[in-house]
Amino acid sequence: MEELQDNIQFQLTDELIEKVEFLVEEQSDKELKNLLNEFHYADIAEILDELDLDDAVYVIKLLDSDTTSDILIELDEDNREKVLQNLSVKEIAEEIEELDTDDAADIIAELPQERQEAVISQIEDEEHKAEIQELLTYDDNTAGSLMAKELVKVYETWTVAGCLRRIRGQAKEVTRVHSIYVVDKQEKLIGRLSLKDLIVAKSDQKIAEIAKDNVDYVHVNDDDEDVAKVMAKYDLEAIPVVDDTHTLLGRITIDDIVDVLKEEADKDYQLAAGITQDVEADDSIIELTRARLPWLFLGLVGGVGAFIIMFYFEDYLPEQALILFLFTPLIAAMAGNVGVQSSAIIVQGLANDDVKGSVNKRLIKEMLLAALNGVILSLFLFLFVWAWTQKFDLALAISVSLIAVIIVAGLIGTFVPLFLEKRGIDPAIATGPFITTSNDIFGIVIYLLIAKLILGI
Amino acid sequence: MEELQDNIQFQLTDELIEKVEFLVEEQSDKELKNLLNEFHYADIAEILDELDLDDAVYVIKLLDSDTTSDILIELDEDNREKVLQNLSVKEIAEEIEELDTDDAADIIAELPQERQEAVISQIEDEEHKAEIQELLTYDDNTAGSLMAKELVKVYETWTVAGCLRRIRGQAKEVTRVHSIYVVDKQEKLIGRLSLKDLIVAKSDQKIAEIAKDNVDYVHVNDDDEDVAKVMAKYDLEAIPVVDDTHTLLGRITIDDIVDVLKEEADKDYQLAAGITQDVEADDSIIELTRARLPWLFLGLVGGVGAFIIMFYFEDYLPEQALILFLFTPLIAAMAGNVGVQSSAIIVQGLANDDVKGSVNKRLIKEMLLAALNGVILSLFLFLFVWAWTQKFDLALAISVSLIAVIIVAGLIGTFVPLFLEKRGIDPAIATGPFITTSNDIFGIVIYLLIAKLILGI
Repeated sequence: MEELQDNIQFQLTDELIEKVEFLVEEQSDKELKNLLNEFHYADIAEILDELDLDDAVYVIKLLDSDTTSDILIELDEDNREKVLQNLSVKEIAEEIEELDTDDAADIIAELPQERQEAVISQIEDEEHKAEIQELLTYDDNTAGSLMAKELVKVYETWTVAGCLRRIRGQAKEVTRVHSIYVVDKQEKLIGRLSLKDLIVAKSDQKIAEIAKDNVDYVHVNDDDEDVAKVMAKYDLEAIPVVDDTHTLLGRITIDDIVDVLKEEADKDYQLAAGITQDVEADDSIIELTRARLPWLFLGLVGGVGAFIIMFYFEDYLPEQALILFLFTPLIAAMAGNVGVQSSAIIVQGLANDDVKGSVNKRLIKEMLLAALNGVILSLFLFLFVWAWTQKFDLALAISVSLIAVIIVAGLIGTFVPLFLEKRGIDPAIATGPFITTSNDIFGIVIYLLIAKLILGI
Repeated sequence: MEELQDNIQFQLTDELIEKVEFLVEEQSDKELKNLLNEFHYADIAEILDELDLDDAVYVIKLLDSDTTSDILIELDEDNREKVLQNLSVKEIAEEIEELDTDDAADIIAELPQERQEAVISQIEDEEHKAEIQELLTYDDNTAGSLMAKELVKVYETWTVAGCLRRIRGQAKEVTRVHSIYVVDKQEKLIGRLSLKDLIVAKSDQKIAEIAKDNVDYVHVNDDDEDVAKVMAKYDLEAIPVVDDTHTLLGRITIDDIVDVLKEEADKDYQLAAGITQDVEADDSIIELTRARLPWLFLGLVGGVGAFIIMFYFEDYLPEQALILFLFTPLIAAMAGNVGVQSSAIIVQGLANDDVKGSVNKRLIKEMLLAALNGVILSLFLFLFVWAWTQKFDLALAISVSLIAVIIVAGLIGTFVPLFLEKRGIDPAIATGPFITTSNDIFGIVIYLLIAKLILGI
């Protein structure tokens, strides 16, 4: 059971990487093969991600293309791009031959235009080539861009026995059978059945008799996130893809959906933190700066705005009231925190489709929620300011305006994402710096206005 | 194809809900059944989530237990709890009979202790009962808590033909076969094969000949998030679960893993926004307050801290330098934003297992990154302050300290999550208010100190 434990407990150690680097250095190909063949291709990909480009390419060229094709898929996108640049059109085509159509299309799509055609022209299997070319025609983030052409298809008129005989052929090239899709003479999807149904059925039964006709499906142009939601909601492990005429085009399997869900979650998480999507901790400083600086600049502009507001207020405030300014960071922080909390919960609710009912209901609920939190927090602040400054009216002014600030911040945080969603803009951008910055400014204005009012300055 | 379109395009409309409410009101059971039977159980669950408790219970009692058991699983946890309170022990037991062992155990685990035993004692199928009782013994968030006992198991000594004959029996009670697991006489997991392999194989071959021995598996006590990572990494749709002796105990399917991944992502996202995990937009104001108020209080304490710091600095600053205070919200905001950015990317990297290499390398990289961002931003701030105040030294003081603040904020944001991870604490708590608040304070201190230094006050 050793290998199993390797699989499950694989740890990428520096020793292992050094050993691989050494074997590459020594060009002791046999040992290298023996070492790496112990590992799952996903693990080998992790190793290659840590190697220098030359070493990685050396390993790719060394191993058999049925392994390396799988490794390529698992490589970090940046590394894969570099590796592919170091492979000849012929070599890439050989990898492509080994891959399922969806993975093959993904890899080819990453190549520069002129190389794409060169590689495709090198694919020997004409059917495989045609299928890949079809997949390349579908837009990103659609069901078509996720689906594979590999599937097991039977005609309603076949018998169970004939079906079993025939799908032996089809099944060979399909990694996982999942459902068997039933089509009519026009290749239109009309039902499904599982291998289990087939095995349990009598061999002389007609497919039409045992097929289930309630087959879920998606349209080739459906949004990939919607496909993910449907498959997750209905616990589907594969879903067929059809066109306007219900012709069966391909199928999407759950492993691709797991990736979509993870990407979506990562994107929202990064936006909430003020990072424009699609960077990793290991990206270059320039890439990370490109992702982070715009949001920081937004914050800077907001801060400058806050300064200008306070600057003008200062003229109207007498000396003794300047203490108000010492609380502006607190006010701004609270406005920002409340805004992020309320926007985040709405953004997540929208992502999970569990935000229903009217916008007004949401706003009223958030107002009550913010008011409740605001009152509790303001009570503490009131007591502190009163005890510290011995000025009742000042303590009152600051704590009352904190309540107002928290309520407004909560409402902005709730309204903005709902508004963006209605406008068809990704509400996730409404969390993080966007909300904190706008709330900083609103908060400080409201704070100073109310304080001024109460202090009767 | 009508029903398919309902499935895929199901929209929860007010009309539909009102119609259901009306039919319940009228007690026109036949129409109600006909209406609901059109929908997938996951859709019916969405409808029930919108109904009053009484109406929901009425529908549950009306429909057949093979449907309602699936509906129960899909209901919002809060609603399910309420519904179960309104079902008799006998009724719950009937639902349990219909469910796979993993779902059955999850539902029973949600019941109060005394009801648990009452329900279990009512389960008629003795094997089902025993399996559920076994599953209830495993800790939350372990492989054991995710696995189901339903699986297809064959002995290495069987022939393909005998195997097919025998698994017809087992397969009936298994919703999805996925892999067939091969065990030896001691029930120890020694390999796997797919239904496809079985169908493609010759009927007189021995299982031992065609079985694959490189079967991934997890230990019953493995952490559920690790199981999710393994299944996602190796694109597994089901994985067997074994104990210390490699005895096959059960299996985990990908649909449960999708839920684990979503929950984990939601939790991190909420923590980043300063919301203690496990609330939804539709939870009560009290629940939401409990999840949000502690973080806001943290922010309040931080703000008070900032006030105290500024208060004491004020004594040392001459009139003309009070303008420094007008920039504290800007400084605090920048410190917070940078901190959240750098911590979020580390937290996400840790979650996705792609943060490798030494802590020092990370800190140095983040320092360079923050310095780069800081210089660019400070340049703008310098020009603004200089133009606005006509004071070169003031502009210099403020913008230089901004660079320092951004660097420190970036380092704190990078170090804290790495530190927490090493200590075995969920680094996700290090994002959001925790980082913004601590960075507000550090930021303001650094800012005022450096400004004081440069201004030579």
